[in-house]
Amino acid sequence: MNSKSLKKIPQDLPESPSDLRSLMRNDLLVSPTSGMALGHVQTNLAILPADLAFDFLLFCNRNPKPCPIIEVIEAGKTEASITSPGSDIRTDVGLYRVYKFGKQIDEVTNISKYWQDNMVSFLLGCSFTFENALIEAGIELRHISQKCNVPMYITNIETIPAGLFSGPMVVSMRPIKRSKIVKTIQITSRFPSVHGAPIHIGDPKAIGINDLNAPDFGDTVEVKEDEIPTFWACGVTPQSVAMSSKPPLMITHSPGHMFITDHIDQDFAVN
Amino acid sequence: MNSKSLKKIPQDLPESPSDLRSLMRNDLLVSPTSGMALGHVQTNLAILPADLAFDFLLFCNRNPKPCPIIEVIEAGKTEASITSPGSDIRTDVGLYRVYKFGKQIDEVTNISKYWQDNMVSFLLGCSFTFENALIEAGIELRHISQKCNVPMYITNIETIPAGLFSGPMVVSMRPIKRSKIVKTIQITSRFPSVHGAPIHIGDPKAIGINDLNAPDFGDTVEVKEDEIPTFWACGVTPQSVAMSSKPPLMITHSPGHMFITDHIDQDFAVN
Repeated sequence: MNSKSLKKIPQDLPESPSDLRSLMRNDLLVSPTSGMALGHVQTNLAILPADLAFDFLLFCNRNPKPCPIIEVIEAGKTEASITSPGSDIRTDVGLYRVYKFGKQIDEVTNISKYWQDNMVSFLLGCSFTFENALIEAGIELRHISQKCNVPMYITNIETIPAGLFSGPMVVSMRPIKRSKIVKTIQITSRFPSVHGAPIHIGDPKAIGINDLNAPDFGDTVEVKEDEIPTFWACGVTPQSVAMSSKPPLMITHSPGHMFITDHIDQDFAVN
Repeated sequence: MNSKSLKKIPQDLPESPSDLRSLMRNDLLVSPTSGMALGHVQTNLAILPADLAFDFLLFCNRNPKPCPIIEVIEAGKTEASITSPGSDIRTDVGLYRVYKFGKQIDEVTNISKYWQDNMVSFLLGCSFTFENALIEAGIELRHISQKCNVPMYITNIETIPAGLFSGPMVVSMRPIKRSKIVKTIQITSRFPSVHGAPIHIGDPKAIGINDLNAPDFGDTVEVKEDEIPTFWACGVTPQSVAMSSKPPLMITHSPGHMFITDHIDQDFAVN
């Protein structure tokens, strides 16, 4: 199955998160969600069996920059009742990936057939929230102007382990003009619960990245003369860490197909 | 057993957290820890069986103002290795309370005889951290000038439930001069991971407190003409909520006998 063959976008896209979720629930919208319901918080998704849930929640607590928890849906429940009343996590993401023992076995628009009552769903913050704030401040984001994915790299920065879970931090990189670095730090610092301030600025080698032109995930972007590569903790970290523990069953969103909550970005700003 | 009969303070009290913990480990220091190792983070303690740990961790995540997590010690481990390397949670608190099914059965200086390998220890932020910052800014704290406990009240503010755990929020009250309210909010806002900004200012009835002179825990303090009662989410909340679920075994610190970490208050300031 090829995720591109599943792409569906209705002509008049609604603006409200609940209307968008409803379209996805009925398989009428299957598309990367970047730019949809602008100003509303979108999240990464990781669904794990209950016996791994404490370790994974603790891992996220210990590594809040790469693993910012927006909401956890307890075993036996399917509604993100805090951020998105009326939602159903089994249907309201456009496209899901299903993994058994760390190996992808399916990509589907609805996970009802895989659902088990002992599953715990983790909604984790995504960089769209702080990217919106940067764009509003007139800061160019190269992957957006190049219409590609943000480049992501596996670093030599170790996360703090918890139970079964451990591994290196994954970061995303955005080239930022020298003159905009301070502003960029100020803006992203306001969102500590969605990756927050950069974890590193400048020399990629210092964090174990040998070639900026060879990202581990996503696409290469141009870094201009007057720009500094700026690195943020990335929401791919918890997924890659969970995956490496090879759980019997794990379900995630497909890259770019985020869960759209009712909460607004500014709810997660600290001041 | 009476906790007062257990009180022990050596003449020359050391200043480092690890030296203080070592004295407690050897039963040479048994005393409320307010004012000790000033500037270092002290924590509340709640120890629960592993099968309740996910629900309790999720409860703390959903209610970060009353339940700020400083560190979690996983089942099978006894060292707070992140904040306090070399510590032993079974011995390094001056005085512990042991509860079975919600009922206190013992008060001891060492919990080794109750320790089970499936126990998970939660270190939760305590108001000493922001109180130090307020005192440094010249803001009088009445319970400290009156040399008594801070008054605490059960409110009508419901916490967000998680699994077995639910219940009303407990708050602490400090009378603050009208002219110092803004400063007080600014200072405590810098410590979101240790209760942070007040949750209510002024009219006690609005949060279900009918008589300021009848606190549910702690002591009554005077509120002067030019002062406004100011309320903060209180670390007693998670203990009282956990207790009401009547776990088969639960161990906490005795009131005032906190766990002293190596971390400093400023590590928890956001800017």
